[in-house]
Amino acid sequence: MLDKSTIATEYQQIQNQICQSLQTLDGVATFEEENWVRTGGGGGCTRVIQNGNLIEKGGVNFSAVHGKLPEAIKKSFNTQNEDFFATGISIVLHPHNPWVPIIHMNIRYFEMKNGEQDLRWFGGGIDVTPHYVINEDASNFHKHLQMVCNVHQQTFYNKFKAWADDYFYIKHRHETRGIGGIFYDRITPENTDLSWDQIFEFSKAIGNSFIPIYQNLVKQTRNLPFNTEQKQWQYQRRSRYAEFNLVYDSGTKFGLETDGRIESILMSMPPMASWVYNYQAEENSDEEQTLRLLKKGIDWVGV
Amino acid sequence: MLDKSTIATEYQQIQNQICQSLQTLDGVATFEEENWVRTGGGGGCTRVIQNGNLIEKGGVNFSAVHGKLPEAIKKSFNTQNEDFFATGISIVLHPHNPWVPIIHMNIRYFEMKNGEQDLRWFGGGIDVTPHYVINEDASNFHKHLQMVCNVHQQTFYNKFKAWADDYFYIKHRHETRGIGGIFYDRITPENTDLSWDQIFEFSKAIGNSFIPIYQNLVKQTRNLPFNTEQKQWQYQRRSRYAEFNLVYDSGTKFGLETDGRIESILMSMPPMASWVYNYQAEENSDEEQTLRLLKKGIDWVGV
Repeated sequence: MLDKSTIATEYQQIQNQICQSLQTLDGVATFEEENWVRTGGGGGCTRVIQNGNLIEKGGVNFSAVHGKLPEAIKKSFNTQNEDFFATGISIVLHPHNPWVPIIHMNIRYFEMKNGEQDLRWFGGGIDVTPHYVINEDASNFHKHLQMVCNVHQQTFYNKFKAWADDYFYIKHRHETRGIGGIFYDRITPENTDLSWDQIFEFSKAIGNSFIPIYQNLVKQTRNLPFNTEQKQWQYQRRSRYAEFNLVYDSGTKFGLETDGRIESILMSMPPMASWVYNYQAEENSDEEQTLRLLKKGIDWVGV
Repeated sequence: MLDKSTIATEYQQIQNQICQSLQTLDGVATFEEENWVRTGGGGGCTRVIQNGNLIEKGGVNFSAVHGKLPEAIKKSFNTQNEDFFATGISIVLHPHNPWVPIIHMNIRYFEMKNGEQDLRWFGGGIDVTPHYVINEDASNFHKHLQMVCNVHQQTFYNKFKAWADDYFYIKHRHETRGIGGIFYDRITPENTDLSWDQIFEFSKAIGNSFIPIYQNLVKQTRNLPFNTEQKQWQYQRRSRYAEFNLVYDSGTKFGLETDGRIESILMSMPPMASWVYNYQAEENSDEEQTLRLLKKGIDWVGV
C-alpha cells in the first residue's frame, strides 16, 4: 500500500535531481536553500536561483505539510474533516533571454481523514509561457507531454491538455497564460482506471520529464540574440504572469489565505515586470503573432 | 435635491483641473486620453501620463456608469436590486524619483433603486505610499488631511485615518501599503450628521485637496539625487503595490469581475516592478527604517 512518507521521500529526491541538473544547465548560479518549518505541522525546502547565465530567477520548492485544515479551505472542499497531509514540488523558472520561455511544473499529493476512509488524490502539470511563441518548440513540447502521458494512460494527454487551457486562462485579459501544457487535479483510481501505484508512477514521470523538456526548450533559444525592445516585451509578458498568479492561481491563493511562508509562495513572481498602458503590438510583428496564439484549443500536436 | 448628473459633472471638472495641474507640475509629458463606452451603460474618460519628468506613469480616470448590477456584486451587496449608477475619479501616480511617494486618490458616488427608496452613498480617500518614508513629509501630509476633514466634520479624520490603516493593509506581508491617509465608504447623512449637499462638498474638497497635497510632497523630493540601488528598491516597493491592487483592492476586484475596460482598471499598475527572493534590508539602512514604519496605528499628526 502506497503511503504518504514514500511519496514525500521520492518527491524530495526528484527535487534534488532537478536542482542539480538546473545548476549544470545554468552553468553560473547556484541555488540558495531555505529549510522552513510550518507552525501547524510539517515544513519544506525552498531553493531559489537568481542572476544565473540562463535563469534570471527561479524557484524549486518542496513541501510536506500536515495538520488541521484551515476554515476557508474546509469550506472550499465542502468538508468537516480536519486532518490533512499534503506534499509536492513546485517550480517556476524565469529566464534572462526573452526567446526562452517561462516554465512551470507542479506535482502534488493530498490526503485527509474522512471518517473511516481516507480521501486522497494526486494533482499536477507542466505548462510553458513563451514571451515569443516559436511554433516548432511549442509543438515539440506538446508532443513530448503526449508521449509521457501515453505511457501511463491514453486518455490523459487530451483531457489534461484541455484542462490546462481552461486553468491557465487570464479571464480579464481574454488570453491564455501561454501555450498551455497539461494540468490535472484530484485524480484517483476511480477516475483514471489506474491503481494508486500507477498514478504515483505517472506523477513521478511528470516530475522526471521536467529536465528533458526544459533542455529541449532552451537548447536553441538561450543563444539567440535579443535587443532592449525585446527585453522590455519580456517584462510586459511577465506582468501578465504576475496577474495570473495573484488573481487566479489556486496554490498562491491557498498560500495567501493560510498565512504560509510568503517568500516560498511568491517565489514564482518575476524578477522584473512592466505594466505599459494600452500597449498595441505592431501589425505582423513577432509580438503580435505571439498575442494571436494566446488562446484555448490550439492543437499543438497536430500542427 | 442633489442629483447624480450634478455630481458626475462636477467630478469631471475636478478631473480636468487635476490633469491640467499635473501637466504643469510635470513640465514634460502630457496626458493621452481614451474615451470609452460601457456596454451595459455609461462610460468614462481615462487619462494616462507616461515617461514624464516627474511622473513615470500615472492615470486619472473618470467614469459615470449605470445599468443592471452584475450577479456577483448583487450578492456582495446582499440585494435583489438591479438598477445602479456610479460615478467617480480615481488617480494613481508612480514617480520616477524613488524619494517621491506613490499617491492614490479616489472619490466616488453610488446609488441604486431599492423599491420606493433610493440607496445612495459616497466613498473615497487619499493615501500615500513612500518608497522611503520621510517623517516630516508624512506628518505634514496627515496634518493637511486632518485640516481638510475638520472643515466638514470633526470626527472624520480620526475615523477615516483608522479606516485607511485597515483597508490599505497587505495581510500576507504583515505590512501596510504605505503611511496611509484617509479612507471612507458608504457615508450618508445617517452616519455623518451632514446633509447630502454637505457630504458632496466634503467629497469635492478631497478631490480639490489632491493637487496642493501632491505639490507639497514632491516639492523637495523630486530634486533629491538617487542611485541605481535606490531605484531597484523602488521597483521592489512597487511589487507590493501590485500585490495589494491585484489581491485586495475592491475597485480592481469589481472591475475584473465585471469585465470592465481592463486598461482603465489596471492603469494603477506600476511601470516597472521587481520581486526579489528573501530580500533583507541592511540594519539601520533607509530601507529598514521605511519597513519599520509600515504598520497600523502610527499617529502621524501627533508625531
